[in-house]
Amino acid sequence: MDAGSCAERTLVSTRLSNELFLPDPALPGQPLAQVDTPSLVLDLDVFERNLNAMQQWADRHGVALRPHAKAHKCPEISRRQLALGARGICCQKVSEALPFLQAGIRDIHISNEVVGPAKLALLAQIAVQADVSVCVDNMRNLQALAAAMAQAGARITVLVEVDVGQGRCGVVDDHDVLALARAAEAAQGLRFGGLQAYHGSVQHVRSHAERAALCAQAAARAAGYASLLRAHGITCERITGGGSGSAEFDAASGIYTELQAGSYAFMDGDYGANEWSGPLSFGTSLFLLSTVMSTPAPDRAILDAGLKSATIECGLPRIVGRPGLDYAMANDEHGVVRVQAGAEPPVVGEVMRLVMPHVDPGFNLHDTLVVFRDEVVVDLWPIAARGLSR
Amino acid sequence: MDAGSCAERTLVSTRLSNELFLPDPALPGQPLAQVDTPSLVLDLDVFERNLNAMQQWADRHGVALRPHAKAHKCPEISRRQLALGARGICCQKVSEALPFLQAGIRDIHISNEVVGPAKLALLAQIAVQADVSVCVDNMRNLQALAAAMAQAGARITVLVEVDVGQGRCGVVDDHDVLALARAAEAAQGLRFGGLQAYHGSVQHVRSHAERAALCAQAAARAAGYASLLRAHGITCERITGGGSGSAEFDAASGIYTELQAGSYAFMDGDYGANEWSGPLSFGTSLFLLSTVMSTPAPDRAILDAGLKSATIECGLPRIVGRPGLDYAMANDEHGVVRVQAGAEPPVVGEVMRLVMPHVDPGFNLHDTLVVFRDEVVVDLWPIAARGLSR
Repeated sequence: MDAGSCAERTLVSTRLSNELFLPDPALPGQPLAQVDTPSLVLDLDVFERNLNAMQQWADRHGVALRPHAKAHKCPEISRRQLALGARGICCQKVSEALPFLQAGIRDIHISNEVVGPAKLALLAQIAVQADVSVCVDNMRNLQALAAAMAQAGARITVLVEVDVGQGRCGVVDDHDVLALARAAEAAQGLRFGGLQAYHGSVQHVRSHAERAALCAQAAARAAGYASLLRAHGITCERITGGGSGSAEFDAASGIYTELQAGSYAFMDGDYGANEWSGPLSFGTSLFLLSTVMSTPAPDRAILDAGLKSATIECGLPRIVGRPGLDYAMANDEHGVVRVQAGAEPPVVGEVMRLVMPHVDPGFNLHDTLVVFRDEVVVDLWPIAARGLSR
Repeated sequence: MDAGSCAERTLVSTRLSNELFLPDPALPGQPLAQVDTPSLVLDLDVFERNLNAMQQWADRHGVALRPHAKAHKCPEISRRQLALGARGICCQKVSEALPFLQAGIRDIHISNEVVGPAKLALLAQIAVQADVSVCVDNMRNLQALAAAMAQAGARITVLVEVDVGQGRCGVVDDHDVLALARAAEAAQGLRFGGLQAYHGSVQHVRSHAERAALCAQAAARAAGYASLLRAHGITCERITGGGSGSAEFDAASGIYTELQAGSYAFMDGDYGANEWSGPLSFGTSLFLLSTVMSTPAPDRAILDAGLKSATIECGLPRIVGRPGLDYAMANDEHGVVRVQAGAEPPVVGEVMRLVMPHVDPGFNLHDTLVVFRDEVVVDLWPIAARGLSR
């Protein structure tokens, strides 16, 4: 190659490099089978039915719905929940709240303790321009929170987190509940708003009856703390908690004033395994599309979606509508499918639909949600808070 | 509130909303304990030792090192590996290659089958401006690949993937190997380059001796396919494969011409559990920093890093330098730490260092790598291919 052609090659290469970009995974109007994979897709009809079912359940019981945005990290989804009547949203991390704030959402509960100077400074900035509440379960953290608010000239509502059985964060001693509530009432920049009484581990108790019993125990504990506060002259406006597995019972408990459920809008393998024999149930609206990239043996096919497209701590993805095909193993970028004898053989290029094992960390792997109705793509929604875990 | 103050509030709120942004997790010069968490951090000294050890091992055995970028998705890391003598890089997905191409890297092996028109079109665009190779294990896919290259006026090197024991992708029949190699030789836009013979499942065989034996078997199978090709007059320039657990044996096998290892630069809980009794071993350079956000009971502390900061299919994160403290359970955004009796009690705000259980899907959860030396932050490197799984 002479010097001239080398220079020409370099020139062309640079120009093309600047032009190269990754196209969107789909365009509105495309059939679902043409979506580039792996992609997270949402069945809008089922999604809307789920949203309506939960909002109507909350309305019927006179409790507020404050759906959790940690499940989906997608502002467009929160906007639709608010349009149907949700009071506000929950976020689990301070950084996670930013895209929702930018989308115009102004009532945000951080359903978690916020620790450290960088996070408290950011929280104070957010509290200047939105109605924000946050959890505390530690006096020094409450003092640091008050100092951050004072410095920013901000005001935030404080909910004392009580442990009603999960054994994660939250105080259990009456003394601690009272002391934190009083400190929140007294501190400049803080306002005591009530209790967070979330019981995460009951959400996936499979038996409907057992789940009901455990939720009743949790609600009774929350009610006990609220009575304690009232007995000491402290008003407890809000008792917030509840997830997709407990919302049926929490709403009807007469104790909780708002529900934090998030996964109900989508459903996943873990929630799908619950027994849904009560009046409230939800359909699966969220799927992972994946393409068969290799069929190396009659009993084996390889999908292009592995651990970077779905997390498997709650089980493996499940293939929909292809009897005899089982997603048997997840590698980083591959899914190994076992093909039972007699099953319709998978073909290289075939697009399969999988149920996500676990919604929340699954959404966190994707930047775009491909939205469809009647098997046709209708929109792409940015998962704008993806990766915002600080 | 009168109309005037309401308008003023709205005005201020909008202005602040535009100004609000998430600060970087750290600044160069900060001590590690001041990094905002959860954050992925890299010990530059250990990292550089790992890079040198693998490059020297490859050099000593006369094999090329082509480190896998799927492990870290960070172009700056690839640049440093290339500067030390690596021949090129591997990517596992077409989209993943784009940030590396944009960083100026021009020798890229896609160590995987690429299926579907959108992906093949993108691959052809990349092949126009870089030396690219890709795997095939299916004749129709090879034909589609050739058509995409012809349409773009591109040329790509094809490696036939053979299954040397993993049971994932790859052909096993001599007939298929020959047919694919011949088709690659014949097709316009394709060039047959050799074999990919990667054995993923031997990488984590714990016993050094057992790993050696399985690697010898895999190398013998690869050598068999290469002999077959030569016997039919087909040159087999490259035999590529090898991971961090097998590189010691693959380099010394006399069969492999290049190594694809990636995790060796970082090490994780899974690779750390291997027996490293041979001449090649690596130190842990990658950690997850996480802050204690709650200490609700003497035997329990809660960290701010869960399933959205580390994946747990290979085990739980391990806490470094805090005897008696065990990361016992990962929730979406929380880690539950069991505190044994007699252990130094964790304090709210304390920053802990965790070993990632599994490097590859772990990097894929983070956008920024915080790089430190001697416990002080020296740089932030974008994990630019994070989430690029198409």
